[in-house]
Amino acid sequence: MKIPEILLIESQHKPGSLARILQVIGEAGLVIENLDVVKRDQDKTVWEVTLNLEADVEYNLAEAINALPNARLIGKSDRVFNRHRGGKIRMVSRLPLTSLQELRDVYSPGVARVCLAIRDDPSLAQEYTGLRNTVGIITNGTAILGLGNIGPVAGLPVMEAKAALMARLAGLSGIPILMRETDPDRVIETVERIAPSFGAIQLEDFAAPDCFRIEEELLRRLDRPVMHDDQHGTAVVSLAALLGAARRIGRSLEDSVVGQVGLGAAGMGIANLLASHGLRKLIGTDLREDALQRFEAMGGRRASLDEVMARADIVIATTGVSGLIRPESVREGQLILALTNPDPEILPREALRHGAAFAADGASINNVLGFPGLFRGVLESGVRAFSNEMFLAAARTLAELAPEHELVPSPLDPAVHEAVAEAVREVAAAG
Amino acid sequence: MKIPEILLIESQHKPGSLARILQVIGEAGLVIENLDVVKRDQDKTVWEVTLNLEADVEYNLAEAINALPNARLIGKSDRVFNRHRGGKIRMVSRLPLTSLQELRDVYSPGVARVCLAIRDDPSLAQEYTGLRNTVGIITNGTAILGLGNIGPVAGLPVMEAKAALMARLAGLSGIPILMRETDPDRVIETVERIAPSFGAIQLEDFAAPDCFRIEEELLRRLDRPVMHDDQHGTAVVSLAALLGAARRIGRSLEDSVVGQVGLGAAGMGIANLLASHGLRKLIGTDLREDALQRFEAMGGRRASLDEVMARADIVIATTGVSGLIRPESVREGQLILALTNPDPEILPREALRHGAAFAADGASINNVLGFPGLFRGVLESGVRAFSNEMFLAAARTLAELAPEHELVPSPLDPAVHEAVAEAVREVAAAG
Repeated sequence: MKIPEILLIESQHKPGSLARILQVIGEAGLVIENLDVVKRDQDKTVWEVTLNLEADVEYNLAEAINALPNARLIGKSDRVFNRHRGGKIRMVSRLPLTSLQELRDVYSPGVARVCLAIRDDPSLAQEYTGLRNTVGIITNGTAILGLGNIGPVAGLPVMEAKAALMARLAGLSGIPILMRETDPDRVIETVERIAPSFGAIQLEDFAAPDCFRIEEELLRRLDRPVMHDDQHGTAVVSLAALLGAARRIGRSLEDSVVGQVGLGAAGMGIANLLASHGLRKLIGTDLREDALQRFEAMGGRRASLDEVMARADIVIATTGVSGLIRPESVREGQLILALTNPDPEILPREALRHGAAFAADGASINNVLGFPGLFRGVLESGVRAFSNEMFLAAARTLAELAPEHELVPSPLDPAVHEAVAEAVREVAAAG
Repeated sequence: MKIPEILLIESQHKPGSLARILQVIGEAGLVIENLDVVKRDQDKTVWEVTLNLEADVEYNLAEAINALPNARLIGKSDRVFNRHRGGKIRMVSRLPLTSLQELRDVYSPGVARVCLAIRDDPSLAQEYTGLRNTVGIITNGTAILGLGNIGPVAGLPVMEAKAALMARLAGLSGIPILMRETDPDRVIETVERIAPSFGAIQLEDFAAPDCFRIEEELLRRLDRPVMHDDQHGTAVVSLAALLGAARRIGRSLEDSVVGQVGLGAAGMGIANLLASHGLRKLIGTDLREDALQRFEAMGGRRASLDEVMARADIVIATTGVSGLIRPESVREGQLILALTNPDPEILPREALRHGAAFAADGASINNVLGFPGLFRGVLESGVRAFSNEMFLAAARTLAELAPEHELVPSPLDPAVHEAVAEAVREVAAAG
């Protein structure tokens, strides 16, 4: 895994000393991203050198720098860790709270009137609280990214990222909830008990197969939208990318053979949405028998990895296994989405080099394109649940917004998320 | 109950028409707080009149205004409800999230490294997430203010207010959690399951007697600070007020007879903290036998309301029953804290008129003086639990900060909360 790293290197003021440091870095095969002076003394300078570092070369690099006559590695700083330090989100007051009168209105005694009004007419909570803007982002840590069951606390940086993205891209209040519970019945029961806290619920990184039953049961029990993002968020963005690719190469998606490598939460979510869109030729592979049976029950056909690579026009990999797909197995003209994060089943550039017509990984086909607008749309609509039609409409919208040479639009453009929200609202209004 | 209300009144441009409107308002016994022009046409003006309105005079006032020849009540707006509209808090991103590189560091793929670092060393969650700044504000709605069991959703405006105050006054992220569950065992179990989400937990508005067992059991099971604010927050501020009052009248608190009217969550919390401070002459009354037995078990003696009023030097009422204490029963020189919100057991001005040396209600003796600094201090200390010593230190600090003619300092001064936090940190460091 690549590590964006900032090294602090001290060099003596001797001719050629900086050049020699950079030469050592270059000989380690590393590209320098940035170079800054942090501190300049009479006889030495501290340089901040930003580069992308492979974890396993780090030790050798430090040794090589310290072996130079006029240089010393004095520290390092890590851009990724720096950005996570202290957490990525914060709850703030929307009110200034600077006068006693304001305090008396917002808190005691004034707040009692608002409480009583909601007691008498619970629908007023939509107007006089933030419920309508609040999404619980709930995980038990059993399938964080492609990292597996690392527990809920180790998953918190992901939940905070989701909340930060919801805030910036769609103005929503995302609330990370970490659950120390893996039994699906107790997960369901716990989410049900705290559900009144949220206008809608995003289930996040729950492992298959429990995730299916957990979502299904919560959909049945709760009176507010619930979405397992790993299934549906990923599916929306994947379908959008396929629509974009099909448009560019003038191929009909409906006639394509879709080969799915991995039939966990993401794989099954994608399979279901593609089937809803009219794709009927689905073949797939997984190590788990229960996953294969679930896939067959929704109309897919089981196949080996070799058969998938040999027959599929579209390959979608969601296995959690980095490097699983041999570049040599790629067939000319295939569309390949290798979605395992952080390291995909096959690098897009490798797939393209071996003949793929399009190839993308989880960095571009990322559910951040989906969930902010999906939740904003469903909350503004005031409906009780997401529908497949909403997911399809969101995917079509994303495909339409993709720039000419891209499969999907930029996730950093708030207009994209507003368009997704509008697509959801339109379906809700029509329904 | 007083209602701060904004009336929109249209008056024709005739000499004396505004005066007549104000006269009608005055005749209804109402004081005008503010007067603004909202809109001025050729022949009429719309005035925004802010006043404190009793709910039951509203109808008559509208009739009286509309009976005037040149005036018409055209609408009203409610300052309290306006301030709660859309909710009082919002989750925000601490990062700008404007570049793809930032997105890659904050979310996928960069976030995976932070997750793995925390998996390998869970203590890193303190540094690379917001946990250390996050307080779960959890209620099941069984005892919201003095309003009783109105359910968790009707209690949300209070939880949001607490979170807004935590944010403004102590820079904390308060997370309202509404629990649809009244069975104490299931409450305990549910809080335990979601406890990893928070650096500390504020139990809020859980009814007695369940609140005692819920807090006690969570203190035993969880590895992070838990505080039932209705018990301990109220106790800290009450003790602070008594210390302030005793100092001003030169009376020793330790020798005083304390009479408690109401031995629920707040009453028992106060009794316990006063006992910790060295007050030993506690008498008290409650309608519930279990409450009286709990009070006796901690050294109190049961008494009737009449006996409390006749014998106590200090009367502390926390019954939830507005107007319970007859002004005639007040004894010369008593200190009286009547803490039921929004309407106290006796109005401070009534108590003072009948001879009390000091009297205050929940508007000034309010736990907003306590919880922001208490939680900030305990989280910064990194200790596993609050201690009685921390509560005592916080109360002494608040008493010391009270201006000369006040019992407690202003809750809107951030320095007050920083001082409370510092007092907590000092106890933690000494312990």
